[in-house]
Amino acid sequence: MCAGDDRDCPQFELHRQGLLEELDSERRSFLKSAFAASGGAAAAWAAGATVGPASAQSAARPGKPTYHYLPATDETVHWGYFSKLLKPQLEIDSGDYVTIEALTHHANDDAERMIKGDPGAESVFLWTKEKKGVDRRGAGPVYIRGAEPGDILEVRIMDVKPRPCANPAYAGKAFGSNAAAWWGFHYKELITEPKPREVCTIYEIDATGQRNWAQAVYNFRWTPQTDPFGVVHKTIDYPGVPVDHGTVQKNHGVLKNVRIPIRPHFGVMGVAPKEADYVDSIPPGYFGGNMDNWRVGKGATMYYPVAVPGGLFSIGDSHASQGDSELCGTAIECSLTGTFQLILHKKNALIGSLAGLNSPLLETQDEWVLHGFSFANYLEELGPKAQSEIYEKSSIDLALKDAFRKMRAFLMTTKGLSEDEAISLMSIAVDFGVTQVVDGNWGIHAIIKKSLFAGASV
Amino acid sequence: MCAGDDRDCPQFELHRQGLLEELDSERRSFLKSAFAASGGAAAAWAAGATVGPASAQSAARPGKPTYHYLPATDETVHWGYFSKLLKPQLEIDSGDYVTIEALTHHANDDAERMIKGDPGAESVFLWTKEKKGVDRRGAGPVYIRGAEPGDILEVRIMDVKPRPCANPAYAGKAFGSNAAAWWGFHYKELITEPKPREVCTIYEIDATGQRNWAQAVYNFRWTPQTDPFGVVHKTIDYPGVPVDHGTVQKNHGVLKNVRIPIRPHFGVMGVAPKEADYVDSIPPGYFGGNMDNWRVGKGATMYYPVAVPGGLFSIGDSHASQGDSELCGTAIECSLTGTFQLILHKKNALIGSLAGLNSPLLETQDEWVLHGFSFANYLEELGPKAQSEIYEKSSIDLALKDAFRKMRAFLMTTKGLSEDEAISLMSIAVDFGVTQVVDGNWGIHAIIKKSLFAGASV
Repeated sequence: MCAGDDRDCPQFELHRQGLLEELDSERRSFLKSAFAASGGAAAAWAAGATVGPASAQSAARPGKPTYHYLPATDETVHWGYFSKLLKPQLEIDSGDYVTIEALTHHANDDAERMIKGDPGAESVFLWTKEKKGVDRRGAGPVYIRGAEPGDILEVRIMDVKPRPCANPAYAGKAFGSNAAAWWGFHYKELITEPKPREVCTIYEIDATGQRNWAQAVYNFRWTPQTDPFGVVHKTIDYPGVPVDHGTVQKNHGVLKNVRIPIRPHFGVMGVAPKEADYVDSIPPGYFGGNMDNWRVGKGATMYYPVAVPGGLFSIGDSHASQGDSELCGTAIECSLTGTFQLILHKKNALIGSLAGLNSPLLETQDEWVLHGFSFANYLEELGPKAQSEIYEKSSIDLALKDAFRKMRAFLMTTKGLSEDEAISLMSIAVDFGVTQVVDGNWGIHAIIKKSLFAGASV
Repeated sequence: MCAGDDRDCPQFELHRQGLLEELDSERRSFLKSAFAASGGAAAAWAAGATVGPASAQSAARPGKPTYHYLPATDETVHWGYFSKLLKPQLEIDSGDYVTIEALTHHANDDAERMIKGDPGAESVFLWTKEKKGVDRRGAGPVYIRGAEPGDILEVRIMDVKPRPCANPAYAGKAFGSNAAAWWGFHYKELITEPKPREVCTIYEIDATGQRNWAQAVYNFRWTPQTDPFGVVHKTIDYPGVPVDHGTVQKNHGVLKNVRIPIRPHFGVMGVAPKEADYVDSIPPGYFGGNMDNWRVGKGATMYYPVAVPGGLFSIGDSHASQGDSELCGTAIECSLTGTFQLILHKKNALIGSLAGLNSPLLETQDEWVLHGFSFANYLEELGPKAQSEIYEKSSIDLALKDAFRKMRAFLMTTKGLSEDEAISLMSIAVDFGVTQVVDGNWGIHAIIKKSLFAGASV
């Protein structure tokens, strides 16, 4: 019998349900003991996931995978970058489970709904004249024991849940913010006045899981906001700036009766790149990162090439919903909690789909999804100034070329097809879509259905 | 009671089934009488649909829509262009039904399987030293009475069926060809020798409707082919060149056991543009044409802005299956027969979704799909040399911008949203995909689910 982790098991769904229930119960007892013992330990965040000392959090079961839980606090998140130099706060073994809380970096667009009453969020978003809960430099990611460059890290997304609002005024609800911002594809194309402008729309999500759609609550035009340090932000140029609701005009009744299907997922998930010590978490790349593919949700599995010792796995940029392209610059940015199983595949034992994998691969129940970028590895291809130059070279034409090359390699390597077979198949049965056009290194994904190969002997 | 043509009728599916049965029976009796009377009359083709004299083909029913049938012959097809100057061979009234046979222009890649024994296909593909069945100039399209510039033509796709192979050796089967050709996105990117090369893969489809997948039969590398006039074609530079199977090497067992889900649809469907007398049928535009969206299949409805008197509706480029992007230059090019109902919406009576529509709009059961191109109207935007220059300016970056603008206009016009509402909604609930990157005027489509508005009062 599988432990809810073997997709080939005929009773996988049943077993997985059992596992999740087990995890839930473990979480509650862990939280109880952890908070009693140490006052809470670990957390994850916007573009990063971190964990406190492993000993304090692990509910180790001899002979079984260990389960770790990581609440979000100011002590554990890292924000806005990846780094191979980060000190991991949690070390886990291949096969272990980790539940990670991710807080949206847009929570301060409406602190009443997304921060107030939530100790973790309050600690992370604390910002006074004297002190800031989390600056650009924060805590470290998840270290997978034994992971080395050339290995593949498999991440199974067991569950994704919205973070309930802690403010009693909004019990049972969760909230997110969509910012139509200056980095959006639409920004220079506005047709109505005033131009240009940035607009935040606050969305409500049902935290109880009863409803599978979100709805707009209100929107407001961004006005210059002064942060607690006294810096004025004329545009949305720094995440987490507290919006003073006395300075903005709220428009209620927007998108009235429109129901947005939810697609909870992590915009950011990946490992640390090797090319630079500190890497901006905005542009995605071979290491994953800010891919912004809404298919990276519950039930999906990601595969990443490990680039540095320990892998250094992070998650963040949690979204309640997003369309292919993330056109206006953001999704419904919403705090989420995810449960993952991390499995390490050593390079010497790689077979089939994973052999030679040099970019993030997504597996859903029905599909394989490859990810092309304007530059497959912009950090290497664009040289020392890569991290600024990538924003000047954004192109979906290039991203399509990369996606094509990757799908061809996938079909030739994992399905044993000739180049001619792979190319014909790509034209008649692979769907190419626009992942995002707002993250510097723009993305095109290529989707092929597993059912094509259901009758194949390969 | 609806006549199988009112989607809002609760029993639409039942009524439509009844209608289709009626159409089938009408088709048989019409064919019988028509061939007895005149030896057959009308046909449709690659980039065009045509019909013989209306009197000979219409099975007029007083007070009911008229049904027309259009078999493909050398007398009725037009090939490779649209033209407002074409003499319509059929005139119909709004609400009429038309069944049109489309022959794939790749049939001569394997004449044994796609032409032999089929009188219509044999007449169209006839090519001897002395005579060619259909040259670049052929017969005319369907004229809709009363259609004027500014009106909208609605085309409901009632049914799409593969054309069964007429060769007794392949009874019950249908065939198509996929050509990985020089205009494909992959062509300059090949990694295996010989480079460059063009490859045709022949696919088999079940003509009885029992199987919903296609499979490869064999492939061959293109070798220089000498046409009956003595012209040597080193590459696939002219559609319909008969391939001499003595000169190519067939590779059997390709894509072994791979099952391609079929998506029968018309790559080309649209009306005649007004900007030029003769318009190459390869680049799509505001008039529809070679959009190559596989969603244009059974059950879907297309809306086109009428540009010239009578509309001049054509179909062609029939496909058994295609992926988003049509990467290698073609789909599974396969002869299909479609049944359509054509409904004219006069410009003065346009409301809701159709008001101000200036580009092709696709409606499926669950979705609205807008079509962006590198240039929304390349014929107008690129001037007198538009028809050659468009091939030098292909860009999906531009196509995304156009798709974004069109979806914004659609949401603002038909759903009454403000620009800010439309832009937020596009980022969180609209999926942008790559329609095609092989037709000069490259395409991005934008999909929004109807269910978003199910609870809306608009």
